[in-house]
Amino acid sequence: MQGSIIDELKESLRVLPGVGPKTAQRMVLHLLQRDRQGGRLLGEKLLEAMERVGHCRLCRNLSESDLCAVCESPHRDRSQLCVVESPVDVVAIEQSASYRGCYFVLMGSLSPIDGIGPEELGMDVLVDRCDDNVTEVILALSASVEGEATAHYVSELLKPTTVHVTRIARGIPIGGELEFVDGNTLALALSGRKPL
Amino acid sequence: MQGSIIDELKESLRVLPGVGPKTAQRMVLHLLQRDRQGGRLLGEKLLEAMERVGHCRLCRNLSESDLCAVCESPHRDRSQLCVVESPVDVVAIEQSASYRGCYFVLMGSLSPIDGIGPEELGMDVLVDRCDDNVTEVILALSASVEGEATAHYVSELLKPTTVHVTRIARGIPIGGELEFVDGNTLALALSGRKPL
Repeated sequence: MQGSIIDELKESLRVLPGVGPKTAQRMVLHLLQRDRQGGRLLGEKLLEAMERVGHCRLCRNLSESDLCAVCESPHRDRSQLCVVESPVDVVAIEQSASYRGCYFVLMGSLSPIDGIGPEELGMDVLVDRCDDNVTEVILALSASVEGEATAHYVSELLKPTTVHVTRIARGIPIGGELEFVDGNTLALALSGRKPL
Repeated sequence: MQGSIIDELKESLRVLPGVGPKTAQRMVLHLLQRDRQGGRLLGEKLLEAMERVGHCRLCRNLSESDLCAVCESPHRDRSQLCVVESPVDVVAIEQSASYRGCYFVLMGSLSPIDGIGPEELGMDVLVDRCDDNVTEVILALSASVEGEATAHYVSELLKPTTVHVTRIARGIPIGGELEFVDGNTLALALSGRKPL
């Protein structure tokens, strides 16, 4: 295990989230002893991805081309724009197979304390997009303080336009048992009740 | 998140032990959104390590040069040879700072069912090493069935030589409370009792 390259690789692996010194060591040994080909491929893919992956010009999602697959697709409804915080949210919504519109990825949420303001989230790009034939902007932001603030900011921002701003429903999740749902969610679910 | 490079990187990350699809996705997004420089460096180090790390000619430990740091050091006792199963064991013993001899790394333990026989573990190299001025071979193998079998094999193998074969002590660990020590360990500790 002596040797600077092994130590350097161990150190480098710690850029991965959730990887501490012990895990890094296990990873290094696994690759060197059992899967050099996999390690080599991973190295190549990392370099390739870091180099080539950029952002979609229209929705700011991660993409290796100028336009992402969703924005490029002729089968998506261009009148709906779903605003999310992160590329994982796009993945989650796509997996639910319940939405055929386009996206706008903020890549974060408003958090002045961390230096994340409207410019960092591309709010100007969002306003530009809403000049097109977009009729509805659906806010699918997280229910945190930052998410709420961002939702509020976007709705204020789009007030002068003709765009209809909506927010995804909040309430008890499917399969959620009432006794385990927290009070805030329950209060929201009650106030947002609908006629059967 | 669409795009083949991102998917390929996600797939490649799964060669790492303990990384499933969700963790891989989190890693990809973290690197692309927050640490491209770290990702690039990791890619380079991976390629470098997979290419350049080989095995020490004398002890079979992972090493980027012909001889590892331990075997090359003039300060190590060449009369003692500690036989271990894996490079992590060398790290563990080195960290205990209680041993100044050399090592021999089997890179596994005897397991005919997995196709690991004496040749795979470099037993011939071990015998060659014992022709030198080695007086003691210390077996520091795990207390599993395979470890026991390997220990037995090595001791039989070295019987014709003048080398003294020993095994590290088994018993209750420091700080171990008797009630939580398993029966087998307790039996070994009892039978291996020493006069105070």
